Amino acid sequence: MRPVAILSIGQTKVDEHWEKSLKELAGEAAFAALAAAGRDRADALFVGNMLSPLISGQNQLGTFISDWIGMWGAEAVKIEAACGSGAAAFRAGLTAVSSGEIESALVVGVEKMTDKAGHDVTAALATAADADNEGEQGVSFVGLNALVMRRYMHEFGWKHADFAPFSINAHANAMHNPNARLHQAITVEQFEKASMVASPINLLDASPIGDGAAAVLLVPAERIAGPKILVAGSAAATDTLAVHSRRDPLFLSAAYASVKKAYEQAGVSPEDIDVFELHDAFSIMSALSLEACGFAERGQGVRLGLEGQINPKGRVPVCTRGGLKARGHPVGATGVYQIVEVVQQLRGECGPTQVEGARIGMAQNIGGSGATILTHILRAVV
Amino acid sequence: MRPVAILSIGQTKVDEHWEKSLKELAGEAAFAALAAAGRDRADALFVGNMLSPLISGQNQLGTFISDWIGMWGAEAVKIEAACGSGAAAFRAGLTAVSSGEIESALVVGVEKMTDKAGHDVTAALATAADADNEGEQGVSFVGLNALVMRRYMHEFGWKHADFAPFSINAHANAMHNPNARLHQAITVEQFEKASMVASPINLLDASPIGDGAAAVLLVPAERIAGPKILVAGSAAATDTLAVHSRRDPLFLSAAYASVKKAYEQAGVSPEDIDVFELHDAFSIMSALSLEACGFAERGQGVRLGLEGQINPKGRVPVCTRGGLKARGHPVGATGVYQIVEVVQQLRGECGPTQVEGARIGMAQNIGGSGATILTHILRAVV
Repeated sequence: MRPVAILSIGQTKVDEHWEKSLKELAGEAAFAALAAAGRDRADALFVGNMLSPLISGQNQLGTFISDWIGMWGAEAVKIEAACGSGAAAFRAGLTAVSSGEIESALVVGVEKMTDKAGHDVTAALATAADADNEGEQGVSFVGLNALVMRRYMHEFGWKHADFAPFSINAHANAMHNPNARLHQAITVEQFEKASMVASPINLLDASPIGDGAAAVLLVPAERIAGPKILVAGSAAATDTLAVHSRRDPLFLSAAYASVKKAYEQAGVSPEDIDVFELHDAFSIMSALSLEACGFAERGQGVRLGLEGQINPKGRVPVCTRGGLKARGHPVGATGVYQIVEVVQQLRGECGPTQVEGARIGMAQNIGGSGATILTHILRAVV
Repeated sequence: MRPVAILSIGQTKVDEHWEKSLKELAGEAAFAALAAAGRDRADALFVGNMLSPLISGQNQLGTFISDWIGMWGAEAVKIEAACGSGAAAFRAGLTAVSSGEIESALVVGVEKMTDKAGHDVTAALATAADADNEGEQGVSFVGLNALVMRRYMHEFGWKHADFAPFSINAHANAMHNPNARLHQAITVEQFEKASMVASPINLLDASPIGDGAAAVLLVPAERIAGPKILVAGSAAATDTLAVHSRRDPLFLSAAYASVKKAYEQAGVSPEDIDVFELHDAFSIMSALSLEACGFAERGQGVRLGLEGQINPKGRVPVCTRGGLKARGHPVGATGVYQIVEVVQQLRGECGPTQVEGARIGMAQNIGGSGATILTHILRAVV
C-alpha cells in the first residue's frame, strides 16, 4: 500500500438548485477540483450517490458523470452506502490509488434531492433502513432517530435543550461558509421553540436536505513535492441495518470499530484530533459519535457541547463549516463535503472558524442509523 | 499490488424465485462460497446490484446483506454500474485485497427482478440509459440495442438468421448447467420464428431477466498453497452513456480499452484465451464483443458463430454455461456469474460443455449499451 494524498478539492453550494441537474452539480464540483490541480481528467471516477435511481431515474452514474465531464474512456463506478455513500466512494478511490491500480482518482459525491416533492424524498430516504422490518412499518428515518434520542434522554437523564449547543455551533459556523445551505445563527430559545418533526426531534435537531456536490482528487503522495494533505487513516465498519436488532442502540459500534482502526493506522489518539467533521444528521448523532470515538464517556457526549468544547476554539471542534445541520445534507455528497472541509481546515482556509494550528483532522460519515460508518483521518505534511 | 486468487465460488439457480427475497438469494450464494472455503465470514463484502432501490425499496445493500449473513461489523458496500455492477463489485473487492487493505473479500452479485410486473422492470432497466436524452424519448434498453443491430446488419450485410448460432450455442450449453434459467435447446427455425420484441431483436436474440445471486471469495494468492485460480488481469473502461453520442456506435471502444489493458496485465493475447464468457444480453452484443476483443475483424463477429467456432470445442468458446441468453441475466449479478463460470471451466467442472485443457479464461461484463465495460482474465495455476 502506497501513501495517498489529496491534491485538490471542489464543491458547490448546498442549496435548492432548481435550475441545475444532477450532472451539472457533479460537473461543477469535479471541474473545480480538476482545475485546482491543473488537470483535465483522472484515471478513474468514483461517484458517491444514494438517490439518483429513485429521484432522477438515472443509474450507472459513474459513467453518466464521467461522460458529462469529458473523461471519456476512464474507469468509472458508483458506490452506494446510503448517507455514507460519499465516504465510501472516497475509500474506493483511495484503495484503487493505494493499490497501484491507478495513478489518480477523482471522487465526486453528489445528490439532487429537490426534483421531487417532500414526501417522495422521505420515502426515498427510508430505503436506507431495513425495508422488510423498518420501512414496512412506516418508520421514517427521522422516526428511527427520534426513538434513539428519546431512549438516550431517558437512560442518561438529559433534556432536549441539552442538545442545543450542537445545532447552535453548526449554525454559527455555517455563517462563515459560503457553500453552506443555511446562513442563520440560532439561539437556545429558537432551538426549543422549533416545530416538532418526530418527538423529541424538532426542525433544529434535524439537518436539512439539499442539492450539492463535492469532489476531491487523489494521487500517490510521492507525486506531490512539498506540503500536502495525506490520508493517514481510512476504515469502514458496519452494524446491523435495523436499529432494533442491536444489542445496544445507544452505542455506535461501527463508529467505534472504524475509528479504532483509523486511529491505529494514523498512529494517533482522540486528543491528537484537531478538528472533527462528524455526521450530525440529527443532534443525537453528534453525541453518539463523540462517545464512540473516544471524546466523551458513554452518555456524556452532550456535555462537550454544554461545556463549550465543540466550537472552533474548543477542545473538540466539530462541524466547523456548518456540519450536516447547517451546511446541509445532500445525502450521497455529505461524506465528500466533510473531507473537503477537513482539507480546508488543514490548509488554514477557514477564516473566523479556523481551528488554530490544525494539523490532523477527522471525518466520519454514517449511512443509515449508524449501520455503515466510515472514518477518515487526514494529516497536513508541511 | 499483490496477486489475488479466487478461493471459492457460490451461486443460486437463475429463475423466477417468487418465494425468495433479495437477501435470501444473496445469502444462498454467499453461504455457498463461504462454506466451500470453510469460513464463516470475510473482512469485507462487496455487493453488485442495480435495481434494488427501484424494485425492492432497499438501499444500503452492502450492510443489508452483511447483516443478513451474519458478517456483523465487517466493511460492506454496494457498487452499481448498471448491468456491469457484478464485475464492478468484483473489481472493487479485488483492488481492496490487492492493496493490502483487507485480507479477504466476499463479492456477491444479486438481483431480484420478479417482484414487480414486466413494465416496471423495463422502466427500471431504462435507468441505465441516459435519462435526459434516451430515457426521456421512451427508448427502452432493447430498443437501443435494436437500433445498433439494424445498423450492423445494414453496414456489414448480414441477415437476422446469421445471428442464430449465438443463441443456439448458449441454449445448447445451458442444457448442462443446472443453475441456468432456460433448459431448452433451440433451432435456427425457432430462432427465426420467435416473437418480435423490437425489430430486428426477437425473443431469441434477447436474454431473459431473472432472480439470482453469485458469489466469489477473494484472498491474497500467497494464502493458497498448490493449485489456484489467479486473477491475472482486471480492467475497466467507459464510453459515452448515450449510444448516439459515439463516434462509431458499432464499435465497443470500452471493451477494446479494457481488454487491451487486461491482456497486457496477464501477458496474453486473444489466441491464449481458452474460454470467453461474454456479455450476450442481445445477440448483437456477442458479435461486437468478439470484434472489440480481437477475435474477429470489424463486422465479422457473426462469422465465428456461422463457422462453428464458438461452441466448447471451437476456437473461441463463449457462453459455455449458457451465457446471459440461457443462464439468464439477473442484471447486477451477471458479472459475478460469468466469473464463477470461468472458474468452473478452469477447474474442469463443466461436464459436456467443458473446454478441454482450459487454463486461461476471460469474462467481460457490460453496463448499459456498451457504456461501462469490465474485463477480467483468470488463470489456473497448477
